[in-house]
Amino acid sequence: MAKRIVVVGGGAAGATAAAKAKRVNPGAEVVLVEAGPYVTHAPCAVPYAIAQAARLYIYTAEQFAREKGVVVYTNTKAEVGEGGRLRLSGAVSGALEWDAMIIATGASPRVPQVEGVELEGVQVVRHPAEAEAIKKALQPARRVVVVGGGYIGLEMAEVLLAGGKDVVLLESGRWILNKMLDEDMARLVEQYIAARGGQLRLGETLTRIVGRGRVERVETTGGSVETDAVVLATGVRPNVELAKALGARLGETGAVWTDEFLETSVPGVYAAGDVAEVVHKVTGRRTWMPLAPYANKMGYVAGYNAGAGEKRVRFPPVVGAAVTKFFDMYIGKAGLGEAEARQYGIGATSAVVKTSDKAAFMPDAREIYVKAVASRGVLIGVEVVGFSPYVAAVVDFAAQLIGRPVEEVILAEYSYMPHTGPVWHPLVSAARLLD
Amino acid sequence: MAKRIVVVGGGAAGATAAAKAKRVNPGAEVVLVEAGPYVTHAPCAVPYAIAQAARLYIYTAEQFAREKGVVVYTNTKAEVGEGGRLRLSGAVSGALEWDAMIIATGASPRVPQVEGVELEGVQVVRHPAEAEAIKKALQPARRVVVVGGGYIGLEMAEVLLAGGKDVVLLESGRWILNKMLDEDMARLVEQYIAARGGQLRLGETLTRIVGRGRVERVETTGGSVETDAVVLATGVRPNVELAKALGARLGETGAVWTDEFLETSVPGVYAAGDVAEVVHKVTGRRTWMPLAPYANKMGYVAGYNAGAGEKRVRFPPVVGAAVTKFFDMYIGKAGLGEAEARQYGIGATSAVVKTSDKAAFMPDAREIYVKAVASRGVLIGVEVVGFSPYVAAVVDFAAQLIGRPVEEVILAEYSYMPHTGPVWHPLVSAARLLD
Repeated sequence: MAKRIVVVGGGAAGATAAAKAKRVNPGAEVVLVEAGPYVTHAPCAVPYAIAQAARLYIYTAEQFAREKGVVVYTNTKAEVGEGGRLRLSGAVSGALEWDAMIIATGASPRVPQVEGVELEGVQVVRHPAEAEAIKKALQPARRVVVVGGGYIGLEMAEVLLAGGKDVVLLESGRWILNKMLDEDMARLVEQYIAARGGQLRLGETLTRIVGRGRVERVETTGGSVETDAVVLATGVRPNVELAKALGARLGETGAVWTDEFLETSVPGVYAAGDVAEVVHKVTGRRTWMPLAPYANKMGYVAGYNAGAGEKRVRFPPVVGAAVTKFFDMYIGKAGLGEAEARQYGIGATSAVVKTSDKAAFMPDAREIYVKAVASRGVLIGVEVVGFSPYVAAVVDFAAQLIGRPVEEVILAEYSYMPHTGPVWHPLVSAARLLD
Repeated sequence: MAKRIVVVGGGAAGATAAAKAKRVNPGAEVVLVEAGPYVTHAPCAVPYAIAQAARLYIYTAEQFAREKGVVVYTNTKAEVGEGGRLRLSGAVSGALEWDAMIIATGASPRVPQVEGVELEGVQVVRHPAEAEAIKKALQPARRVVVVGGGYIGLEMAEVLLAGGKDVVLLESGRWILNKMLDEDMARLVEQYIAARGGQLRLGETLTRIVGRGRVERVETTGGSVETDAVVLATGVRPNVELAKALGARLGETGAVWTDEFLETSVPGVYAAGDVAEVVHKVTGRRTWMPLAPYANKMGYVAGYNAGAGEKRVRFPPVVGAAVTKFFDMYIGKAGLGEAEARQYGIGATSAVVKTSDKAAFMPDAREIYVKAVASRGVLIGVEVVGFSPYVAAVVDFAAQLIGRPVEEVILAEYSYMPHTGPVWHPLVSAARLLD
């Protein structure tokens, strides 16, 4: 009988892994098991679906199965049953034998354990399937409290402000986007949130949601806010239940530990995407970064190795390249921030430049700020805030240069024309100040 | 007496070199000699100055001297005089001794040696100081023939079409932008030139310009074209006269040969910018690529080494990252094209993907085409054509990855959000097809 490779989870990582495993090993039977109704959904599309700016990008199970040669079970839950077999329930039920497995169960929102989270008008951003429900629920609200000043909270704040709501953004840390930016760069974002009419409450933690049936106000460590609705964007946690039940080791981050080939501590069982840890290139330590491009690439690597039946492709260390936006302000990061570096005991220096997304003489040039962080003459991090998608270009360019000597960064190659960037690349300008 | 470092040429390379030399060696006297009236001019701004979209970005000599602590002689020509001293003439005249020299004399347009180039209505794009004159000269013209289908010709064609002129673009090669793109990618550009109303004449060489006093028609190897004006954009040549007179060796490209520290064959004499050769990372051979970012960085390196009085900083091999545009179509390149690789005897394979500048589900996503070229499993070139400045971002990302195994490119890191790029980076998508 042909080898059977079971992939659990039909998001970015699982769908890529299943397709790749089948491609590498066409003789194998590849089964993709997904608890929800869709495969290859795009959670990043959720805020835009709410804004009606985008249609969701979802394969039907039939399309995916046909195009990729994979057996797809949707609306089917997988647990560990007798003798290590998978016990399926839902649309498909029964025991499923496997020769190799790829765990791609993703992550779920972390819902704060406070009184009132179950009230009507309290919404958690979780999955595209819920977009319509969230949109409908928030329609009548005049004021919305968004809990959590991370990038999901910020994106939701934009959508709600654009829809004419009063928005109060509650963040327990001392500054917004504090997992992404240093305080100095975050202040630029905070100023712009205020300029766009958002109300910020920093250093306040949600303690209670109050209402009779429907939410009426939230209480925090700093006071209380009357509101018609609450959006919870308080982070995510990896869905490690299946991995634990299989006996796979969890790492210090709480996500699934893997080796560099993405095999877990259980031979033949791989993990990919938001459920698994990655290794940070600067610190050398394991970290948990549930980012979409990693999910795709980890799916590729796990699918390759599981399909080949041997460890052929390594998933390389990462630098956490990420970008988000708030209206026309784009915010990006790669590597370590200065404060973050200190938390890891890494001495760091930094320089900030204010420059533009085009040549300075172009009348439509827009400002961008770049902070470069170095340690012992090596570039270890970059933060970028500015009014142009060019921010993402700077981040992607920087992502290739993290870990290199500053002198090499100064001489790194890039293209130039007045419409696409300044003649001195913003990262190079910042690096020159570090030299 | 303090060491004297003379920099000849006040463009991007010379101005950067002078400032860096002074910064590295504040005790030295740094003299910048420029034949024209300006320093740090931006030739790339010329087409946009004509379009009135930009003001030219020029330092006055006084500003530059004051800010950088450099002695500046503008409107002053430098030649080699007795005993190797510089003989100055113009605004400043006399003999100038030097301990180190940096040649940054740039490049000049290559004017075709045909009858009629001196007629009224024939314009050469040369220097920002001429922008007003070119603009005025072309004002009354209904039809303009642009000779040369390189990026300067294409940019001029855009400006002229936008100004309501009939434009005929004459290119002697078989396809447009043939030093930049392979034929398949160039066809996309040619289709768009036609869609924007430009008339292309490919494979035709200018043989004569005819008119009584003022241009009336051009004759080519393929026929003749009635016209009111002609813009010559037929390439550039390095201004090597000073270097030759100093006894510096020219390389096989005809530009000034330097070692990796940018010292010429004459000790103590450096060369930087458009006058000098660079080394191509893929072929390992010397090449001549007069690109603005190289001028800046070569100025930095030559200024550093000349200022320090020792060879400290190397100018690294290049991949020719470049970008241009035609209306809202952006066109970029890094590394070698497929046809170009074959010319160098490098066997190459390629893959083209059609993708978008944002996530596919975004309603304003615009198409981009990426061609990746590989040889023996290593990425050697990328060509990008599409309707978004994101093209430049792809080129800059690619520039960091040329010379790396395709498998590494597939796993290269980048940021993602729906507004700034697709979840699979276009270069990664193309690389996956090469794997």
